[in-house]
Order: sequence, then C-alpha cells, then structure tokens
Amino acid sequence: MTTAQTQAQAQTLPKHYTELCDLMHAKGTLGSVMALVSWDQETYMPAGGAKARADQSSLLARLMHGQATNPRIGELLDQCQADNDLNDPNSEHGPNIREMRRDYDKATKLPSDLVANLAKAQSQAQDIWKVARTNNDFPSFIPALTTVMDLTKEKASCLMSDEHNELYDALLGEYEPGSTADEIEAVFTPLRDRLSAFIAELKDNGTPPKVDFLHQEIAVEKQHAFGKAVTAAFGFDYSKGRLDTTTHPFCSGFAAGDTRMTTRYSPNNFPDAIGSTMHECGHGLYEQGLPKATGLFGTPLTSAISLGIHESQSRMWENMVGRSKAFWTWALPLANKHFDGAFKDIDLDTFTKAMNTATPSFIRVESDESTYNLHVMLRFELERAMLRGDLAIKDLPEAWNTKFKDFLGLDVPDDATGCLQDVHWSFGLVGYFPTYTLGNLNAAQMWETINEQIPDLDTQIAAGEFGALLKWTRENIHQHGRRYTASETIERATGKPLGADPLMRHLESRVRPAYGL
Amino acid sequence: MTTAQTQAQAQTLPKHYTELCDLMHAKGTLGSVMALVSWDQETYMPAGGAKARADQSSLLARLMHGQATNPRIGELLDQCQADNDLNDPNSEHGPNIREMRRDYDKATKLPSDLVANLAKAQSQAQDIWKVARTNNDFPSFIPALTTVMDLTKEKASCLMSDEHNELYDALLGEYEPGSTADEIEAVFTPLRDRLSAFIAELKDNGTPPKVDFLHQEIAVEKQHAFGKAVTAAFGFDYSKGRLDTTTHPFCSGFAAGDTRMTTRYSPNNFPDAIGSTMHECGHGLYEQGLPKATGLFGTPLTSAISLGIHESQSRMWENMVGRSKAFWTWALPLANKHFDGAFKDIDLDTFTKAMNTATPSFIRVESDESTYNLHVMLRFELERAMLRGDLAIKDLPEAWNTKFKDFLGLDVPDDATGCLQDVHWSFGLVGYFPTYTLGNLNAAQMWETINEQIPDLDTQIAAGEFGALLKWTRENIHQHGRRYTASETIERATGKPLGADPLMRHLESRVRPAYGL
Repeated sequence: MTTAQTQAQAQTLPKHYTELCDLMHAKGTLGSVMALVSWDQETYMPAGGAKARADQSSLLARLMHGQATNPRIGELLDQCQADNDLNDPNSEHGPNIREMRRDYDKATKLPSDLVANLAKAQSQAQDIWKVARTNNDFPSFIPALTTVMDLTKEKASCLMSDEHNELYDALLGEYEPGSTADEIEAVFTPLRDRLSAFIAELKDNGTPPKVDFLHQEIAVEKQHAFGKAVTAAFGFDYSKGRLDTTTHPFCSGFAAGDTRMTTRYSPNNFPDAIGSTMHECGHGLYEQGLPKATGLFGTPLTSAISLGIHESQSRMWENMVGRSKAFWTWALPLANKHFDGAFKDIDLDTFTKAMNTATPSFIRVESDESTYNLHVMLRFELERAMLRGDLAIKDLPEAWNTKFKDFLGLDVPDDATGCLQDVHWSFGLVGYFPTYTLGNLNAAQMWETINEQIPDLDTQIAAGEFGALLKWTRENIHQHGRRYTASETIERATGKPLGADPLMRHLESRVRPAYGL
Repeated sequence: MTTAQTQAQAQTLPKHYTELCDLMHAKGTLGSVMALVSWDQETYMPAGGAKARADQSSLLARLMHGQATNPRIGELLDQCQADNDLNDPNSEHGPNIREMRRDYDKATKLPSDLVANLAKAQSQAQDIWKVARTNNDFPSFIPALTTVMDLTKEKASCLMSDEHNELYDALLGEYEPGSTADEIEAVFTPLRDRLSAFIAELKDNGTPPKVDFLHQEIAVEKQHAFGKAVTAAFGFDYSKGRLDTTTHPFCSGFAAGDTRMTTRYSPNNFPDAIGSTMHECGHGLYEQGLPKATGLFGTPLTSAISLGIHESQSRMWENMVGRSKAFWTWALPLANKHFDGAFKDIDLDTFTKAMNTATPSFIRVESDESTYNLHVMLRFELERAMLRGDLAIKDLPEAWNTKFKDFLGLDVPDDATGCLQDVHWSFGLVGYFPTYTLGNLNAAQMWETINEQIPDLDTQIAAGEFGALLKWTRENIHQHGRRYTASETIERATGKPLGADPLMRHLESRVRPAYGL
C-alpha cells in the first residue's frame, strides 16, 4: 500500500483521488531526480560528462513526459471532478484537483510534432543567435527568430483555454497560471511612466552615492562564509539544503528536505555575491516552506504557485531586507568580522546608500533594482506586440531602441547591446520576462503589509532577528502551495489586488536619500 | 534514428542486434542516473534529503528492474542467438550477446516474491545485526541471519545454471561471472597456508618497522592536493572525473567521460588517505579505460568484467605501485613539498619499510596488505560451509574463532570483534568477500608479467612516469570490457591461470626487508 493510500484510509479519501496522488508522487520523484541531474551539471560534473549527461536528461525528460501525459491521469481526473465531495474549493483537495487538471491539459494539448519542431528550431536559433550577437548582426537572426516565433504562436494556440484572452496569456500561463497580459499591463503601464520619470529626475537632480569601497578585493572563501552566516540567520535550514558555486546562480528545491542554492563570487564584486546569495535564499526559504503533507509530494498542493510569487520571495530578501539600513545595522559589523574590517572606515549611512544606486545602463542582467523593471517592461511590450502581429520581427531593433530611449533615456549603440542581448526569445521564451517585475511588485506590496503587521520589523532586523518576517511569509505564502492563484494570494495576503504604488514608494524611499533628494 | 541504428547501417548490423543495443543504452543511461543519485547521497546531499532520496532510489530501482526484465530483450536475444553471423565468439558481438543473455537470465530468474521477501529480511537483519554487534550478542542475531541465509540459498537455487557446480557458484556469479568456488579454493588453500606460516615467522623472528612518523598531523587540504597530484600523474583524467570526500571511499563510473572517485582524510592518518586515494584511482583508471564505442554504452562490451578484476586494478596502484621503493623515490620529495617537509628527516628506506607492515589484528577493514587475505579466506570458507549446510549458524562464532586462531594466531576476544564485525552476511552478501583477495592475486600475477615486459618499470616509476604501466593495463584489461571472463583475461594477460605464487612472492619481497629478514 502506498503512502497516499495509507493516508487515504485514515481520512477515507476515495481511491480515484489517492491513486492520482500516487501518480503525482512518482512524477514529482522523477522530477526531483531530473533536478539533481541538472544541479550536478552546473556544480560538480566534470566537463567530460556533458555527452552522457545529455543522454540522461533526454531519457528522464522522455520518462517524465510519459508520466505527465499518462491517460490514466485523465481517467482519474474525470472521476475526481465528477465526485462532488472532492471538489469543494474550500477543501485542500478541490484546488489540488483543479491544478492537476490544468497541468494535465497543458501536458496533453501540445502535438508531439510541434514539440519536436519547436525543440529543433530553438536549438538552431540559439546557435544562430550566439553568432549574431557576437557579430552584432540582427538581420542574420531574423529567419531563425521568425521560425521560433511562428511555432511559439502555434504552441500558444494549442494552449489557449477559457481563462485566456489572447495568445500571450496562454504562454504566460506556463509561468504565471491564471494571469493575463491585460492584468499585467494595467500594473506595468503606470509603473513604467513613474519609473521613467523617477530615473530622469535622479539623473538630472541627484548626486550618485560613492560605491568604490564595495569593490575592494575580498577573498572568495570569506564571502562564502559571510553568505552562509547571513542566510542561516534568515532561517535557511542547512540540514535540509546547501549553498554551492555556479556561473549563474539558481535555487532548486528537489523535494522536502533537500533544497540546493547556488551563488557566484568574484573577489572585487562583493555586492553581486551577497545579493545573489540573499536572492537565492529567498527562493530557498519558499521551497523549504512548501507544504510537506505525507503522500502529497508531487501534487500541486506542495508546489510553488508561479514564477512571479517565487520571485517575490527572492526579491524581498535580496532588496527589501538586503538593501535596508536596518539590515546593514546588523550585517555591517558581521561583514567587518568576516572580512577583517574591510569596511571599518565606512559608516552605516554611506554603506546603505552605496547599496541603493539607480543608473540607466544597457544590459538587463547588470542593472540595478529600479532600472531593472524598465528593461523588463520594454521586453513585455515588444514580445506581446510580436505575438499579436503588431510588430514585424525585422522592425524589432528600431522598436527596441525607440522604447529604450523613452524608458531609460539612453541611445542604444548597437543591437548586440540592444535587442540581441538576451537568449530568451531564441528559445521561444515569451511571457517569462514579466515575472521578474511581478516579483518586485508582489514583494513591495507584501513588504508594506508586513511592516504594518509587524511594526517593529526594522528593530528586529537591526538585531539580526528574521523569525517574525519568515513566519509571515510561511503563513501567507509558503504553506498554501498552489491552493490559490498568484492574484488570489497577493490579495489574500495584502488585502488588495496587485498595484504599482508600493514598488514606487519602496524604490523612492530607498533611492532618493541615496541620491541626496 | 538512434545512435546504434545509425552505426548499424554503416556496419550493416541486423536490426535485432541494434535494437537490443539501444535497449541496453537506455538501461545503462538510467543506471548512470542511479549512480549519480547514490554518489550525491554520499557526497553532498544534506541530511534532510534522506527520505526523498529513498523514494528516488526506489523509483529508479523499479524502473531499472523493468528495463532489465523487459520481455522484448528476451525476444531480441533469441533472434540474435539464432543469427550465426552474430555469434562468432571471435567477433565483438558474439561475446556481447553471450553476456547480455547472462544478465537477462539473471534478472528474470528471480521470482518477485523472493526479491521482496529477501529485501524485507535484509532490512530487518541489518537492524538486528547493528544492535547485536553493539551488545556483543550473537544469539540475538541467529534467527534473522537464518532467515536471510535460507532466502539466499533459495535465490542461489533460482540462479543456478550449467556453469555452476554448487549453490555458492550461483551467488559468486553475481560478482565474478564464470568463476567457481572450486577454482577459488584451489588458489586460496595454498595461499592461506603459506601466508599463515609467513605471518607467524614475521611475528617470531622479525622486527616491526618504525611507523610513528606516518601519523604526524598533516592538514587535510594538503593531503587532498597531494592525492590529486599523485593520481593525475598516474593518468587519471580530471577533465573526465572528480575526487571528493566520503566516510567510505568508493569509485563510481557513471559513463564514459564521468568517473567519480572519493577518498577520506584524517589529519593523523596520511597512509590511510593516500592508500585509499590510490586504490580508488585504480578503479577510476579502469572505468576511464573501458571501451567507448558509440552506441554500445550500456552493453557488456563497455562494462567491467568482475569485481575481482576491478579490484586488481585498485590493488595494483595502491599496493604494487603505492608501497614500492620506486614510487616513494618520486613521491617522497613531492610529499615533502606538499607537506612543508613533514618527512624531511626520514630516509627513503625507512619510509618504504613503514609502508609495508604485516601484523595480525582482529578487524578486516583495518588490516594490512598481507593479513587482509587471511581475513577474507576465513570468511570464504565459513560462508561456503553455511551455504552447503556443513556449518549451523549457531556454531558460527566457534568456527570463526577456531579458524582465526589457526590463520592469524590470535584469540578472538568476543563476537563483536569476531563474526559480528561485517555487515555483509546480514545483507545476504555471500560470494562477495573472495573478490577482495582475487583482486590481490590478479594484481600480483599481472605485476610479474608487467615487470617482465617492461624491464625498466622501476626506473620509470622512480621518475614519476606511469604511462607504460597504464598502457599495459589499458591494452590487456580495460579495452576488452566483458569480452573475456576473469579467468580468460588473467590467462591471456599473463600466460597462465591464476595462482598463489606471485602474490606470495610479492608480499615476501616487500615485507621481509621491512622486518629485517
């Protein structure tokens, strides 16, 4: 008898539901093996292992696809959805079944020909994109990008359902289930305009803070020890996780009890390392806080809601906490202890200001907390226009450069520094970019509520106490798994739908003082 | 079209063979995922990951069992074995098919009830054994060990085939395919008597060498760097492998291009660490030297012959190379460089003697190169007698202690230090122990041939040149995969069947001088 079946007997859950949960458990377990395989590839795999690793990943992907599209899931879902006792939206099972249906439909809606054609086109487009970026040659990328975008539209058509208004929504649904482009636009547009104005004001009237001391040489081992100390204080349980080093930081929650974070170090870029570490720790805390009900592992109830909610957790610890004066009240002395007094001549105000710069620049992944959102919103508008057919691919560079000037006030010097900088579109990743800014918006809105509900939060943080904050996220976000959609979650947690005001207030309150405004 | 099919077209191999190879490729690939999962469990997995890891391992084991017993393999094997063109024993395909048949029969011969009962009994017996060993209470272990042994006999009955003379052979066949207990006895008995006499002579007439300097404190990081330098010089390709740290050292060849070795360090036990590292490197070099024919990964042709041959590779580098004066001529200055002159007052002779002690002791895993074989042969005789029904389980302690006195001249003080010390029997591992001494015997016999064929080997080794030695093992052992059995391999490589003389000559030539004889 399986775990879910044992549990079911105690709760007298019907067999069609427990069998479904057992199939999900096996699917989740194989998924956790895939997660380990991917983690190892980035952390410890020797270079020579790449070929065998590709075989392993491809075999596991095939097995996982078989599990996700197993017709038995469809049969059991039909039985569960016809079972009124199970479908109470206020129970934990109703939402679990609703989300399993969403996943199953998504997995079975794509014809295998389309999947294969898209995989091939993506692989080719990526190779062409690399060369095009190196040579600053957008025209050579047009045919490949056109193919990928056409197939991506076809994919979107297949994925369309009642909850989608336009093709873009169907793609967005892969990362932000239940959200629509209209909803996002409603928040992004006011944010975009206010943020552009804010950046222009800083440029015209502000004095950028001194930051050179952040880039002194600090040994990588010492940065690692400091990062572990900070994240352990945040509440990351190192008996149930790790922190390793990779080129691109990430966090992977294999399963309850095993969450792997990675970060990167460079001797002269301490803020990048500690920022990445706190960011991934936010993801890690979410993974560690997901429900652990026995027998339900692998079902939506024990999974994360969406990328935008996941990102809210990483951004909150990285930015709301990690760039605050309260945090550095505690962390600066700790850093000086770890780094042999590297910052001993820097006062708290000077240090905090240096952590809160906002300067327009060309490359998204190198940009600061404020301008980052403008990079994202520009991409959202352009990819939506391409998908709608309102923007021809050949016209992408001009549209990019015009918007870039509008949003960030800079003239893009060339396409390599412009519309060719990201890999995403060559991979057909449309609908993914907005989740970054959704993360910032969610985080800022939660942050205001948290500070209302925990009035002495700053005092706690300045004393290195993060328990009340973590408890709030556990109770309002983590413990629900996918029970509520992202929109429902933010509204339940903060009492209002997602808006642009909290993020603007947050950025202004941090960056204005840093620029002497 | 798959890799093997592509290759087949070029070579016009029949589809029943290439399809078989493709099934083996998938089986080998899933096996390599399982190897990664196990490696991670010992190296980097946080403690909290244990529960999910058990689910992962059990799911993978189930999938692997399904692959190994897939009836399609049986159909394809029938077709291949009826295809005269394929079955030429002098081709590479004939032996590949022969070994696939061996594996398939082994996998399909065991009734699933028996497998389940054995797994349950093993798990229970292991728990009981742990307590019994702690409490030095053999009687409490008798019922559990009896159950495991009865089921193991049943398993042996199922696995019996034409090439087996007795039940023991069927179990031995899991680790040493094609070998028999009679063959092993024929070599072990003379070795046992001569080794016992030799150990007694050392005790009566020899002067144990000074070893205290080997146990001075040496920082673990320095030991690690030295171990990597030595194994890189041996020829281990670190672009296709790693060296990590675990409680129990092991080596796992995931696939071509990815071989993971582990070792252990203690600040006061340098010889244990470097011995373990060189040992695992021998396994690693074998794995890295296995055939890499495209499309044949996962078939017997690209796999290791047997544990006894695998162990010969580890023992050769650990003992024949790693305890020799020639090796330390090169390695002692290197060690002094890594360890800030820790051995600068020790001359080469004194150092080499310290690496070649032989002193009877009670615990197998702590014993030296010579006495180790007596520990193994004692277990071989006892487990064979139990399986034959010649030794009742209740009489095991007395039989153990009597033999121990005979072989090693010591009175066993209690069962915890005696017949309860190893986990193997609680796990039904019968036929496994002899492979350790087979490794030593194979290594010593190869070593004599190698020295005949490379007359200046000592000079090369003293100069830190290991290429000719590695080349010999690549050509005579590694490149053949499972094309020949262990007995055929040693006879092809050395011109004679396995015997006890080379190992005795090797031990005497090393240990006598160390004891001033």
